[in-house]
Amino acid sequence: MKIYVIGIGLIGGSMALDLKDLDPSHEIIGVDTNDSHLDEALSLGIIDRKASLETLNEADRVILSIPVKDSLHLLPQLIDQLHEDALLWDVGSTKEQLCKVVENHPKRNQYLAAHPIAGTEFSGPKAAQKGLFSGKPQILCEAKSTRSDLLIWAKTAFRQMGMYLRFMDPKEHDRHMACVSHLSHISSFMLGKTVLEQEADEQNIFDLAGSGFESTVRLAKSSPDMWTPIFEQNKSNVIDILNDYIQNLENFKRKLQEDQFEDLHQQMKNTNQLTTILNGIKHNN
Amino acid sequence: MKIYVIGIGLIGGSMALDLKDLDPSHEIIGVDTNDSHLDEALSLGIIDRKASLETLNEADRVILSIPVKDSLHLLPQLIDQLHEDALLWDVGSTKEQLCKVVENHPKRNQYLAAHPIAGTEFSGPKAAQKGLFSGKPQILCEAKSTRSDLLIWAKTAFRQMGMYLRFMDPKEHDRHMACVSHLSHISSFMLGKTVLEQEADEQNIFDLAGSGFESTVRLAKSSPDMWTPIFEQNKSNVIDILNDYIQNLENFKRKLQEDQFEDLHQQMKNTNQLTTILNGIKHNN
Repeated sequence: MKIYVIGIGLIGGSMALDLKDLDPSHEIIGVDTNDSHLDEALSLGIIDRKASLETLNEADRVILSIPVKDSLHLLPQLIDQLHEDALLWDVGSTKEQLCKVVENHPKRNQYLAAHPIAGTEFSGPKAAQKGLFSGKPQILCEAKSTRSDLLIWAKTAFRQMGMYLRFMDPKEHDRHMACVSHLSHISSFMLGKTVLEQEADEQNIFDLAGSGFESTVRLAKSSPDMWTPIFEQNKSNVIDILNDYIQNLENFKRKLQEDQFEDLHQQMKNTNQLTTILNGIKHNN
Repeated sequence: MKIYVIGIGLIGGSMALDLKDLDPSHEIIGVDTNDSHLDEALSLGIIDRKASLETLNEADRVILSIPVKDSLHLLPQLIDQLHEDALLWDVGSTKEQLCKVVENHPKRNQYLAAHPIAGTEFSGPKAAQKGLFSGKPQILCEAKSTRSDLLIWAKTAFRQMGMYLRFMDPKEHDRHMACVSHLSHISSFMLGKTVLEQEADEQNIFDLAGSGFESTVRLAKSSPDMWTPIFEQNKSNVIDILNDYIQNLENFKRKLQEDQFEDLHQQMKNTNQLTTILNGIKHNN
């Protein structure tokens, strides 16, 4: 199979490595606006050759892994170009608008809206790694709109990569992501900003970072190029959850001002239950 | 030497293990209000025997590692009990009030205000580990108020544990800690609270946690028993920095509402410099 990977970074690159591993006869073809990324991917053995979008009709499978805003513009015309047995899936972090933009596309059933919940704070081809998706969830949205033979192929491939599948409505997906993922990134970026503004001496940040800051601010190393469009696509959900978060912080501050330490203790104790949730839940594939 | 460890948890326990390792002739004696912790510490080989505060005058060295609020009440009378060549240091996360409460104590020079920047989100004797402090900073406050022979002994011991020393004014220490550490804990606790309130289905939290939530919320597993008194002791600094944080979040929300995505991109890009700070700074010992 000829597999095109449009956008050869952490996610696209890792998926290409896994697919090649599953079947070495696959030909992996890279497309990227950043030519040095393509050369890097070639030399790292992530892709077999470079190409441009003009030859997309030769592709049997297409992974679309570029910033969500660009996907939104490109997706309809990419699907236009697919031959009749080709499948394209994207791996973007927001799904509602993407599903909407192809809702009435005549070849809608050759598209699958996917979101693998895996990654690191690093980006680019160098960040790609085999086995990144093992044990991780793959969220599929509107899977029933994808042609069944193509869907079965994709589900099999994702499971062979070690992923377990979850099915979600795209609206629900975006709401959940705003809450669990996007808010985490904003809280981390703003934590980093606050500390940088207050600590003139960087040595203090370094010396004291081991006391909790380092892990909490990890996401503030993330790529603004990737995250700005995610916040834009998911603006309304993000604003909602950001309001809830700010209210909780305001409430914490008020309790502190009023010396209501038992209340604060109880809030923290209730939140401790996350330990159980994060350690304990089993999933069904 | 007879070394008393008052409060045998993560920090006190780890320090006891290191001291014993440095000199196996040390006798490590545990004191704790929680008797099951003492038994656990005994069976884990962290302490050689149990004791109570009544025999504290036999101690040559005392590590005070209990919640800061309790330290504040106990510290003066503990110092009262010390024999004339004994040294007591605490390892608490706030320092201003503690230094203040012993300011005019006749045996002030047998006390050293210390804060090792090391730890995990776990607590109790089981969490103690050898080598926890290796490569980590030890903050010393008002070190000049400690008798020089005792100070030299302590500095040598801390360096032998692999720590590097930083000297800070207690007021400054508390301000820096509010910014770099305490705010991180509040942001994490409130992130966890917000997500728990919004996500009725815990399976969603688990499935989506890999997308950034898991690391950002790590500190929300911390002990409320430890953290409530820290926030209480450092209330005014914590409120100040919490205000700055909330303002940054409000600003982020406003820019999002106004579609000022370039500004958001710039904010995130500026914050990315933390990567360099956290990786790159060298320290002098």
